Amino acid sequence: MPVIKVNLKKRSYNIMVGAGILSSLGKYLQKLGIGNSAYIITNNPVNNKYGVKLNQALKKYGFTTRFKIVPDSEKSKALEIAAAVIKDLASYDRNRRIFIIAFGGGVIGDLASFIASIYKRGIPCVQIPTTLLAQVDSAIGGKTAVDLAQGKNLVGTFYQPRLVLSDVSILKTLPLRQLKTGLAEVIKYGIIQDPYLFSYLEKKYKDLLNLKTASLEFIVSRCSAIKAGIVGRDEKEEKGIRTILNFGHTIGHAVEAAGGYNKYNHGEAIALGMLAATGISNRLGLLKNKDALRIANLIKKIGLPTKIQGVAYQKIISAHYRDKKFIGIKNRFVLIKGIAKTKIVENIPLEIIKEALRKT
Amino acid sequence: MPVIKVNLKKRSYNIMVGAGILSSLGKYLQKLGIGNSAYIITNNPVNNKYGVKLNQALKKYGFTTRFKIVPDSEKSKALEIAAAVIKDLASYDRNRRIFIIAFGGGVIGDLASFIASIYKRGIPCVQIPTTLLAQVDSAIGGKTAVDLAQGKNLVGTFYQPRLVLSDVSILKTLPLRQLKTGLAEVIKYGIIQDPYLFSYLEKKYKDLLNLKTASLEFIVSRCSAIKAGIVGRDEKEEKGIRTILNFGHTIGHAVEAAGGYNKYNHGEAIALGMLAATGISNRLGLLKNKDALRIANLIKKIGLPTKIQGVAYQKIISAHYRDKKFIGIKNRFVLIKGIAKTKIVENIPLEIIKEALRKT
Repeated sequence: MPVIKVNLKKRSYNIMVGAGILSSLGKYLQKLGIGNSAYIITNNPVNNKYGVKLNQALKKYGFTTRFKIVPDSEKSKALEIAAAVIKDLASYDRNRRIFIIAFGGGVIGDLASFIASIYKRGIPCVQIPTTLLAQVDSAIGGKTAVDLAQGKNLVGTFYQPRLVLSDVSILKTLPLRQLKTGLAEVIKYGIIQDPYLFSYLEKKYKDLLNLKTASLEFIVSRCSAIKAGIVGRDEKEEKGIRTILNFGHTIGHAVEAAGGYNKYNHGEAIALGMLAATGISNRLGLLKNKDALRIANLIKKIGLPTKIQGVAYQKIISAHYRDKKFIGIKNRFVLIKGIAKTKIVENIPLEIIKEALRKT
Repeated sequence: MPVIKVNLKKRSYNIMVGAGILSSLGKYLQKLGIGNSAYIITNNPVNNKYGVKLNQALKKYGFTTRFKIVPDSEKSKALEIAAAVIKDLASYDRNRRIFIIAFGGGVIGDLASFIASIYKRGIPCVQIPTTLLAQVDSAIGGKTAVDLAQGKNLVGTFYQPRLVLSDVSILKTLPLRQLKTGLAEVIKYGIIQDPYLFSYLEKKYKDLLNLKTASLEFIVSRCSAIKAGIVGRDEKEEKGIRTILNFGHTIGHAVEAAGGYNKYNHGEAIALGMLAATGISNRLGLLKNKDALRIANLIKKIGLPTKIQGVAYQKIISAHYRDKKFIGIKNRFVLIKGIAKTKIVENIPLEIIKEALRKT
């Protein structure tokens, strides 16, 4: 079973990747010595499918469990929900040796880890991501978040989990659209850092769309290792290293926002954002046509959108200028000079962004 | 002007102590380069007295300012208040280079720094403590907090400020009871770490009660240096070093809670807690009668309570066992073997605690 270490000195932790490893959770937790009382934050769809299994895995090793269900919606990433869960947690706690398990996708992971980071100035948090997107991206790296009406992820902390357990068997029940949204982030890792992963996706995309275990395990462990490496070198996005993870996200977030967060989901918007960033890179003479075409073809093969439809460009541009990644009036893009060759460029002229959007 | 450095590598910062230094704030902030837009969290009493002065000090150096008033009450340390302020902050922000100023006592400091720590995963925070208690204790060290109905300070983070500016001139308008509550923490620093400070208090307590500038500056800078030293060695209370700051707080918190947080204020409860801890130390044969008497005499001279009145012992004992500092069923006390000689002792028998309470 692949075990990937995130190296952050005293805050180091392991990412375990494998098929069927959920049933061994109790054993791993016992070794960590993080407490004996698990407070599991999850939603109904995940709990209905895997709650019993998780509960057994914990009870077998003597952990007490309490399941806290939050709505299955991005709306759960709200300060009000976090406050309500914390009150329940505090009422339940009463000096237990308590830790939190985030059992779900990105919304659950962001919410639960935020709660863990602010309850009693931080209690241990274990991530058990149940979507591909969460397994390859959001469960790793310690960015916690809830949304405000004024913008997504505006409230949060940097707070590392004590363990990430990615059971790829869980992905077998993932709806196709959710699988694809995760694959968008996998493509991103290939583009920014890993030519082998990129070629693998070009060859094996059908295996992935058919949820073949070996392929899932390969991409989850490969992407986890990439993210672990980047986070280990730039935990708090202070050195410009972690920034490359935002490839496709500058325009992607704007597309998501402009579409009211229901026209395109995260991965779909990121696919469009990657195409726009690829277009800008090509337009600025950084990227060859050939590489731009490879990227467009892979996104198409996976079945992710390649054309912005039903969202006005002007809305995307406006959303783009509200993004929290901008300080003052500067924009900042992660561009590419080839597969695994990134370049941060600031102050891209608006005309060039608009042109790239029109062509996407 | 005394400048004390808190050594925390990349998170190091200065504590500036002096009379009338508020008017130079803009200059100090400009050097720090932490932004150009100050979001000041304060309450009406502080704002009415010193708001204009703070505003001028900032405007003179080109900072934009926004004052956010929260109620002048411990009730402001609530998740709901934090959420409401964050929403106002996010609406106001719009990609400004924003930082927070905590302008008030401990409640404002804890609330404002908590907000700074979770907005956009952390924006710079400047502490301008306006009470003696905040200047010598809560503004330093990065413990942020809000209360829950289930207990005080149950939600919070470790998040260091970028600057602490303690203008002792502001203390001149402090009500006597508030001055004394701060002096309780000053006595604590003497007891746990500084025989010279302890003797100084024995000799100069009248100057302090008369708000003499030189004495105030001396104790604020001396206590700031002690706390800075302890925090620098044990930022997150993981090494048992920071623990000694809890001298008097184990019983003190219980007295505060048992009195419904209005019978005794923090410093008064801490004075009683220090007397109880002194009594336990003496009873266990750790501390000589002579030293126990010196402590009791100093507390009496300052005019802090020396006798628990109007709060049932049983209530104190119950509150004591609900304290968040207890993990599992163990209790843990900071005791003393003399002035500046602390000893952490766990599992003090209930009978000995009760006896000490009866004698306090």
